[in-house]
Amino acid sequence: MELLKQRIMQDGIAMGDSVLKVDSFLNHQIDVALFNEMGKEFKRRFADANITKILTVEASGIAVACIAAQYFGNVPVVFAKKQEASNLSADVYASNVFSFTKNRNYTVRVDKKYLSATDRVLIIDDFLANGNAALGLIDLVQQSGGTVTGIGIVIEKGFQTGRKLLEEKGYRVESLAIVQEIHDGTVILAD
Amino acid sequence: MELLKQRIMQDGIAMGDSVLKVDSFLNHQIDVALFNEMGKEFKRRFADANITKILTVEASGIAVACIAAQYFGNVPVVFAKKQEASNLSADVYASNVFSFTKNRNYTVRVDKKYLSATDRVLIIDDFLANGNAALGLIDLVQQSGGTVTGIGIVIEKGFQTGRKLLEEKGYRVESLAIVQEIHDGTVILAD
Repeated sequence: MELLKQRIMQDGIAMGDSVLKVDSFLNHQIDVALFNEMGKEFKRRFADANITKILTVEASGIAVACIAAQYFGNVPVVFAKKQEASNLSADVYASNVFSFTKNRNYTVRVDKKYLSATDRVLIIDDFLANGNAALGLIDLVQQSGGTVTGIGIVIEKGFQTGRKLLEEKGYRVESLAIVQEIHDGTVILAD
Repeated sequence: MELLKQRIMQDGIAMGDSVLKVDSFLNHQIDVALFNEMGKEFKRRFADANITKILTVEASGIAVACIAAQYFGNVPVVFAKKQEASNLSADVYASNVFSFTKNRNYTVRVDKKYLSATDRVLIIDDFLANGNAALGLIDLVQQSGGTVTGIGIVIEKGFQTGRKLLEEKGYRVESLAIVQEIHDGTVILAD
């Protein structure tokens, strides 16, 4: 997606060989107009998927998912919780996720009421790196008996193994921008 | 806001004398169409406020803020982080918040780049109870030298002290629904 790629080149900050900071428009400050264009692009790519629900995970995925849902006929958005919340029911689907970034495990949870066997779910997240977060969300949908129709990602780190892992399991991955390489403070995007 | 009040009466679940669960449409599963109506209503109430930015806090506030921003000319949304994030710069505004729900302190943080002295900020959150979260966000704006133009809340617990605290400090509070009382599993909303 050209507009997003331009924005990454303009405002993204590469750090070391693997970190891309995009908090000026994606995951701390949010450019809502850009997010609308991203939502349209997700709809274009998953137009044929008959999606009934969008699943994401707190916190950064929520904005992307909600704005995108507007282009899928306002399907409900469900965000998995990462923390034991006092107001979360005990009757949840749960999956364990290992975060390489934070070098620790966390659990994603969704109340069983909000995923069902008839759901056709689009999983949306801001980043794809090793794919562990996406696998955790897929696991939640599988536990519910629902169908994962695809995985929509804003920025994929193409030099990490997430896409390979997900495609090997038969999932369709659509990323709006793919980072080929981060090297000495420079970002190289795939065409 | 009539539509929201109807929805709370229909789908909200009262627990004990103070908890209102609205995770079927507000803070776990999200009804995006309803959120658009909420966004329009915030715009109607703050039409004269010349807002340049919306500030909220992760995670539940993000969806409300982003959908609402569309009705304020797509002003940027900034969400304060509750956790030390590896990708957050060290140069932040920070404020300590005591959570009665969780009986512990947490810190809200915003990168100094995303709040400035020229900003006219609308603070948006899903719930107002004791007002501590709102006071933390106000503190962040004050540190930046910006102006808090108002506080927009989806559901106010009118039987708690948040509004009184904020109004005494001179802030305008607009809540889309006000819970007057929760008692033995019944919710009573203010007119």
